[in-house]
Formats: sequence, structure tokens, C-alpha cells
Amino acid sequence: MIKKIGVAILGLGVVGGGTYKLLTEHKEYYLKTQNVDITVEAVLVRNKEKALAFGVPKNVLCSNIAEVVANPNVDIVVETIGGCEAAKEYVLTALRDGKTVVTANKELICKYSHELERVAKRTGCGLYFEASCVGGVPIIRTLLDGVQANKVQEMMGIINGTTNYILSKMSQEGADYGETLKEAQRLGYAEADPTNDVEGFDALYKLSILSSLAFHTKVPYTKIFREGITKVTGIDIAYGKDLGYTLKLLAIGKNGEDGVEVRVHPTFIPETHPLASVSDSFNAVYLKGDAVGDVMLYGRGAGSFPTASAVVSDVLYASTHSEVRYSTFKNTANADGSVKFVSDFESAYYLRLSVDDEAGVLAKISGVFSKCNISLVEVSQVSKKKGQNEAEEMGRVPLVIVTHTTKESLIKNAVAKLNALKIGEVKALIRVER
Amino acid sequence: MIKKIGVAILGLGVVGGGTYKLLTEHKEYYLKTQNVDITVEAVLVRNKEKALAFGVPKNVLCSNIAEVVANPNVDIVVETIGGCEAAKEYVLTALRDGKTVVTANKELICKYSHELERVAKRTGCGLYFEASCVGGVPIIRTLLDGVQANKVQEMMGIINGTTNYILSKMSQEGADYGETLKEAQRLGYAEADPTNDVEGFDALYKLSILSSLAFHTKVPYTKIFREGITKVTGIDIAYGKDLGYTLKLLAIGKNGEDGVEVRVHPTFIPETHPLASVSDSFNAVYLKGDAVGDVMLYGRGAGSFPTASAVVSDVLYASTHSEVRYSTFKNTANADGSVKFVSDFESAYYLRLSVDDEAGVLAKISGVFSKCNISLVEVSQVSKKKGQNEAEEMGRVPLVIVTHTTKESLIKNAVAKLNALKIGEVKALIRVER
Repeated sequence: MIKKIGVAILGLGVVGGGTYKLLTEHKEYYLKTQNVDITVEAVLVRNKEKALAFGVPKNVLCSNIAEVVANPNVDIVVETIGGCEAAKEYVLTALRDGKTVVTANKELICKYSHELERVAKRTGCGLYFEASCVGGVPIIRTLLDGVQANKVQEMMGIINGTTNYILSKMSQEGADYGETLKEAQRLGYAEADPTNDVEGFDALYKLSILSSLAFHTKVPYTKIFREGITKVTGIDIAYGKDLGYTLKLLAIGKNGEDGVEVRVHPTFIPETHPLASVSDSFNAVYLKGDAVGDVMLYGRGAGSFPTASAVVSDVLYASTHSEVRYSTFKNTANADGSVKFVSDFESAYYLRLSVDDEAGVLAKISGVFSKCNISLVEVSQVSKKKGQNEAEEMGRVPLVIVTHTTKESLIKNAVAKLNALKIGEVKALIRVER
Repeated sequence: MIKKIGVAILGLGVVGGGTYKLLTEHKEYYLKTQNVDITVEAVLVRNKEKALAFGVPKNVLCSNIAEVVANPNVDIVVETIGGCEAAKEYVLTALRDGKTVVTANKELICKYSHELERVAKRTGCGLYFEASCVGGVPIIRTLLDGVQANKVQEMMGIINGTTNYILSKMSQEGADYGETLKEAQRLGYAEADPTNDVEGFDALYKLSILSSLAFHTKVPYTKIFREGITKVTGIDIAYGKDLGYTLKLLAIGKNGEDGVEVRVHPTFIPETHPLASVSDSFNAVYLKGDAVGDVMLYGRGAGSFPTASAVVSDVLYASTHSEVRYSTFKNTANADGSVKFVSDFESAYYLRLSVDDEAGVLAKISGVFSKCNISLVEVSQVSKKKGQNEAEEMGRVPLVIVTHTTKESLIKNAVAKLNALKIGEVKALIRVER
């Protein structure tokens, strides 16, 4: 039995355009393989000329959301305009009107899924957002329907393509952050204002969504520790390489005895870790379930067709499943009061110091760590790397330290004490996952 | 609204035992996160004493399938006894009786899914088999509900843990096949009779299932080219390493203009390929969709709890979805007559020859390839590796050749001609994917 489904697409940008093409070009294929006959019944755009040039027939073009939801042939509304204000209003309008919504909007889902879900429940509509996280990689479907037999204990992801591209290039070419960012902007891998990506906000939104699903409890983005990549230097990437580490912007979620721990920051991982070889604009999520053990999903985290693949897979899922399932946790604005969040998390640390080239300095520095209850894996005076500021380093030598697992509060305390010693300065502090 | 679900488990071996433990230990967790209250209502075993010692209550133990299906509280029957004869009868009995079936049995699904599905359709029952392929890695869910917006063009998988363990060890330790197999048997990674794994039958069954789902057409296992790993030598693994290759038993499926191409054989892949770092008993499937591009799923392909994770995820899926979906292709015993299968496939090839140490030999050998219309990437006389048979090689030298992409028929022809020359012998022929 063939099911007829009408789709509206809001916005015809990178993702909306890919979705339009995929739905129209694969119409016969979906009919044959999914028994679903999908027609794009409405496309909401600001610029009708551009949409016509794109090949969208004039009769489906709409210029406001009222026109879209008034169309009785529209069953599913795909939101690909991005941003939070108009998108939220449009999605709420569609849900109120009984249309199932598929969205690629991570910020919207991260910040407002509780409001959207409330309306969806009331009107019995579906709310799907696979495309909001890690592009075409079906990580949300996997959490919902693939590893749901597990208590997910841990999640580590490279979930932002821009920063992974920049860090990969810096690592491969020994280049510094500023020049690599410019190159990434020139090639379209980074936006003109790159803040959202390089400061880790994009990864933060995605981690909030993924960890809420994985741990079955609302994890608001405000609970996530965040540090971007703007202070990363080629020098530290090079020293890390010498130690067998690769630098990645990781989104980390853990759910253990002490509570939920969520953080986004540059992280050294062993070069043999499966995530270490995830390069350029590829993304991957590594998770540990109590039954399945380690699972990794890898693929393109962005781009027109990879993201459209996730959007259309949601459209097909919504078309072929009658159950509308909502969050498997109490989806409210804030976290459940009974859930503990770990703020003083544990990690190993890499530190680079610039210290006076004098006898006794190493002993003094080791003494600080010892007093702070931090044990060290490695302390080594290293040779200077290309690009190290010669003037700044005059009379000083670089020292690289790797600690055993310790607490964030202890390391912050140690850094303050080290700087107070006046025999050197902590130039870099990078967390290490082993 | 909480749904009560009764489960029967047939067999309490490695997978059945893991499933029993997972379902009982996570009962509260599934109630909380999935709104499903699952009770194990029946366990079919031959040895009741063993089951009691395992912790199964006496009142749920059954000794025949009739007893199991007669229990009105049983909604879902989990088949984990393996093999084809009893398993098929039990599964058919359950389906006829209106019980949804979840199975981990790749041979059963590969050989008889058309028969099982026919009965399931008649009685309106579900038939789920995520656990039949790649253990806890949700590859089947991904093909059905995660990348279904795509035409899958290609699939490459390391889908047998035993052979991957053996090849990884041979590569890491420079050991030969025989001794590594013995070690694998000692550690429980290989069975006493390892034929099913090392000759590629296990991978064959799984590739038949996965490629049928991916390409939406029945791919009977009899259509799959198969070559095991029993003739692989440490010598060729070592030469391959020198060329930048890693050896894996790959299951390859392609769906292109010339038709469906399916094969299982030892394959050299570049050491930089994401599949190259999938070591030991880990499995991975790499697929290429026309929209999503490259996607890889990685995890444990076997073992009690990883496989139980897939079984229980299917149980939860069946409990929370009312649509029962069957194959997205005409599931018959044989392939659809309209589907073409590529038998004379294309590949690049690695050859190792043992040739007379005389002037002019290289020219003669190159001449054979040239006459056979095969162009070469590399011909090099290489130094002997540890373990090469000194007597056999007396007066001869090893020669390693890598070809450009050519046809299987052409390479077979070239090998026959090379051997007929009597100036050397082809000692190894291994396909190369780049």
C-alpha cells in the first residue's frame, strides 16, 4: 500500500537545497523501496527568483509560513533556515497546525526542544532532528533505536567539521591557528565570523542534544564546560606529536557514579585511538555502552547532501512509522533537580612552561605539583620548535609536563602556584584523554 | 503508558545467556527509558541443571518449543540456538503461532529469510535480525532507518572477528597462518573446526543479508565470490606492508551500472584507509551512499554482551513500534531474474612470483602482462622475507607485482600464461582495493 506524503521545505540554502534535490530526484526510488510517494508541496523562500533558477516550480513557492501550513497536502515540514528566532516561530506554527517537523537546526533543538515537544505532544505530531547532529551520520537513530539496550557510559565525539579541519591542517602542515583559519575561510570550511565553530558553541549545542538522549536526562548546554581552539598553537601540536598525541576538539559526555560530566575542549588523544585518524571535515562519535562496549560512527558531519541524507531519512522514517516518540527523559528547560553534574572533572593534563634556564628550576616545579597532590607521568626539557617566540623565550627554556589523572581544580591551583613562583610561566594547558 | 512484554529465549549459550542477563538486569532501566516492562517468561534449554545454575527460575524453563508458544504471556521469541535445522523449525513454529521473532542466526536468515518472512507476513508478526550481522554494531538498523534516503553504491566490511584477529596477529607478529590459528583457538577466538570462519562462509552469510538490504534486491549467498584466508602467508603480509598495504578479509558489495557485485576474499587496502586500523576482534562496515558519502560503523562483531545488545535492541524496537516492516525487496529463494550479477569483476592485484635469477626474465614477465592487456603499477625484485622456503627458492628470486585495475578473467589468464613460461611460478595472488 503506497502512502502519499506532502513535504514543505522552509529555506532553500545549503541543506534545504540538498533536501529539495534529494526528494525530487529520488521520488521513484522511495516509492519503490519505501512504499512512500513524496511530493514537495511547498517551499518557503525569501528570494523567489533564486528558487525558480534552482528548478523549483512556481506553484509550490511560498513567501510566508501561513501559506505553507494552510496547504492541506503538506504533512511534514522540513525546517532548514537555521538560527533561532524565525525558525522557532515557524516550527511552532507547523506543530500547532498538526504538521510533523523535521529540522536540521541544532541550536533550536538544544535551546527549545522542550517547548517544541510540548506542542508536538499536544497535537500528536512528530519532531525529528537527526540532521541537527553530525550531518549524515545516523547517531541519533543509533541512540534511539540501535544501542537503546545499553546504559551509555561515555561518549566522545569530533562533532564540528570546521575545527577538525583547522586542527588537522595545523597538525599536517605545522601551520599556526591564524593562517589556517584564513585558509579555511577561503575554502568555505569556516564562516566569515567563525566564533560559533572555533569557540565550541556548535559542538556545545550538539553535545547537549546527544548527551540528553544518551543519558536519558536533560543536559542543558549551560551545564557544559566549553573551551574553543583559538588559543591552540602549532607549537603544542608539535610537542604533542612527539609524545604520540593528536589534538582534537572533543565533545565528551560521561555518566558515572559521580553524575553527568559534559565538556567541549581541545584534547590530546593517543595517535592510535580510532578518533585520531578522523581528519579534515569528517566527524565521528565514539560511545561506550555497558553491553555493546565500544562503538564508533564515522562520516561527513556537514555539507549539502550528507545533511540532506539525514533530513530525508527522518522524512522517510516519519512516513513509515506511526508511533510518534518523544524524549526518553523529562524534557524541561532546566536539568532535573535530582541529577548531579560534575564540574570539577578528572583528566590528565599536558602543560608547556617557559622556565628560567637555571639549576634547581626542575626541582622547584616538581615540588609544586607534589604539594598540589598531582603526580607526573613525564617532565622534559624540550628543544624549541619553529615559531616559538625567540624574544619571549630569551634566557628561558621550554618544559613539557604530562600529569596522571587529577582534578581540574587541582591543576588550576598548580598553574596559579607555578606562575607565582616567577621562575617561569605556564604557556599552555591541554587536557589529555587516554 | 507502560507496555507489558513477555519474552522467550531459545537456547542459553553465549548469546542467549547474555540476552537473559541483559533483560533481567536492565528490567527497571527499560521500564524507565522505554516504557516497556519486559519479563522473561520462558527459556528453552536442553540442560535444565545448567540453566538453574545460571540463575533462571525453574518455572520459566521449557524443554520443547510447543511449551514455549503455548505460553500466552510470550509476545516475542528470541532465537539464539544457532544452526539451521532446529532453529528454522522453532522460528517457523513461533511465527505461525503469532509470536514476533528476534534472531541472531545469520545462516538461518541468509538461507531461509524468504520462507520465514512469508509466514511472518501471514500472521502479522515481526522478524528482526540485527544480531545476525556484526554483533552489537547497529548496521541493519542503519540500513533500514538511518541511511535509507540513499542509494547505497558500495559496502566494504570487516565482518568476521576470527579472521580479523588472525590476520591482525599475523601482521603484528610476523607469524604464519597455522600457528596463529592455533593461538586463536587456544584463546577462544576460533572454533575447534574453524572452517566456517576461515573459509569465509560466516562473512558470506552476513554479506548476503547486508547487501540484500543495502541494494534492495535479493542477493543469495550462492552469487557471492568467496575465498578464505587459509592460503595467506606471513610473507605476503610482510611484502604488502612494504608497499603500504594492510591485509583484511573484506566483504565487498557494489551496486553499479554493470549490476550487483559481491565478494569475500583477503584484500590489501592502503594502511591509511579507515578499515586498516580495525584490528583484532573488532568489526567495521564502510558504506558509500549517493547522498551521505562515506559512513563507517565500528564495534565488537561478536561476544556475549555485544551480541545481546543487538538482540535486546531489537526486542525493544519490536516492543515500541507497531509497524511490522519486511524486506524492502522481493524476498524469494533466488535473485530476481532482472538483476545482473557481475562475476568477472574488476580489481587491482598483488602477485608474488618466484622467478629464475637470470637476465631477461623481467622482460618476459612484463611481456605476458602486456599481451594480456594488464598494465602494471609496480614490478620489483624484492629481498627474501623470513620464513621463505629456501630450498624451493634455490636459484630463484622473489618478484612482487602490483597491477592497475583489471578484470579477474584477465588476471587468471595471465597467471596461467606466467606459469606456463617455466621461468617462474606465481606463488600468491591477492586483490587490492585502493
